[in-house]
Amino acid sequence: MLIIGERFNSSIKKVEQAIQAKDSAFIQSEAKLQAEAGADVIDLNAGTLIKSEPEEIVWLIQAVREALGGTVRIAIDSVNPKAIAAGLEEIAKVTGQEKPIINSVTAEKEKLDAVLPLAEKFRAVVVGMCMDENGIPEEPETRSELGGKILKAAAEYNISAQDVYLDPLVLPVSTDVKKGQVALTSIKLIKELDPEVKTIIGLSNISYGLPEKPLLNRTFLAMAMAMGLDAAILNPLDKQLMNMIKAAEVILGNDEFCMKYITAYRNGEFNRV
Amino acid sequence: MLIIGERFNSSIKKVEQAIQAKDSAFIQSEAKLQAEAGADVIDLNAGTLIKSEPEEIVWLIQAVREALGGTVRIAIDSVNPKAIAAGLEEIAKVTGQEKPIINSVTAEKEKLDAVLPLAEKFRAVVVGMCMDENGIPEEPETRSELGGKILKAAAEYNISAQDVYLDPLVLPVSTDVKKGQVALTSIKLIKELDPEVKTIIGLSNISYGLPEKPLLNRTFLAMAMAMGLDAAILNPLDKQLMNMIKAAEVILGNDEFCMKYITAYRNGEFNRV
Repeated sequence: MLIIGERFNSSIKKVEQAIQAKDSAFIQSEAKLQAEAGADVIDLNAGTLIKSEPEEIVWLIQAVREALGGTVRIAIDSVNPKAIAAGLEEIAKVTGQEKPIINSVTAEKEKLDAVLPLAEKFRAVVVGMCMDENGIPEEPETRSELGGKILKAAAEYNISAQDVYLDPLVLPVSTDVKKGQVALTSIKLIKELDPEVKTIIGLSNISYGLPEKPLLNRTFLAMAMAMGLDAAILNPLDKQLMNMIKAAEVILGNDEFCMKYITAYRNGEFNRV
Repeated sequence: MLIIGERFNSSIKKVEQAIQAKDSAFIQSEAKLQAEAGADVIDLNAGTLIKSEPEEIVWLIQAVREALGGTVRIAIDSVNPKAIAAGLEEIAKVTGQEKPIINSVTAEKEKLDAVLPLAEKFRAVVVGMCMDENGIPEEPETRSELGGKILKAAAEYNISAQDVYLDPLVLPVSTDVKKGQVALTSIKLIKELDPEVKTIIGLSNISYGLPEKPLLNRTFLAMAMAMGLDAAILNPLDKQLMNMIKAAEVILGNDEFCMKYITAYRNGEFNRV
């Protein structure tokens, strides 16, 4: 499973302050922590700094690259096409990296028309949220339909299904206890849209408003992985969560001879909780 | 989910000794621990004591009832029709209980013909293992077919699908890393056989031969619950496992207003690990 580190989000006060103060030491130390903890991708979000968002994204990319090298895989977490374009432009200055990720676009035509050309031009992967101008559908079937719409629009821009990560949109079970099952069923239905299509979730939404969030988060992640989840935006510093992902990869048959699991055990990783 | 406490198994040396010594204090204390920890059913297995198995089962039922009351729900874990019959006879002496569970029968005709009449006579629930004289099938599809065969045979004895728990048979991922996914897919396929049919697993098999068994067990259980698992035979004294089940019930929408989860939190249950 692709693990996307969520900790660079300007809605977190400390992160916003670090961006405003251009505190690259803070950014670099956090970037290293996330990568060492097992993040495959670093998500960058400067959405609260509306006016300067494109510049902030570019600065964040530079800071993270200083810490982790030019080929670190980055997700640009923005709904602003200008910020996305500026970020992709900056990323493209270094060659040889895996595809950057645009996080995210919805099924609204105008949004798709703004973002998909950027994905095509920069050969980026797109996260597509299964919602449109009417908001987030109640039913898994409708979410999956909107996912299909995003896939179809992506194909028109020569973006193949394997470069689209569809997000079924996880809502808190505290507001309605059906929301967990809706998300799980949505993952299943989306995976049936196309054998190549991928699914992604923002994990922590599930536990909003409830106690013992890490317990709910990791339980939900294991369940979502059983339904075929391909990627998650999460906190890689949550050690118990990362341990559970290793166990889930064993159970799903993705860890040949259980070697990664056994190595993690031998390195004492399971004790560091 | 139905939680069946696995700790009374004569293959555990201490349990075998307690049965042989008729140490009812040990049995009663263990029975109370399991019930307090959240076991809905107490599984009783005296399979290693081949010659006296029927008498041992009867004695175990009496000892457990002394500890937990006459209506405690019991699973008779035996392949010996005489032990099953003796146990069901003993259980039937007290009325007003939930259906006892026969654990288990396979899809072999001769076994079905021996056990199903007992289930019919005593109105018991049957655990059906998805294997036959050829052993455990490799493919989930074949396991599901054997499950269908058990369902059909049960119907001939007036046992409805809702009183059959089909066991897809969990094999260790340490022997073959595909075994986890095979079990998960089998659960899914078995649930598609009949809207009423239930699924059950013996949890701890999954982690045999690997380190950090509790981590693998609880991860696998969450994944199996996402596929629709209805019951598991497990160690209810594994606190982290029981916490995860509470979280999984929230996510599956089985815990209205998250009340059980929040109550467990308020009672400090999540801290006792």
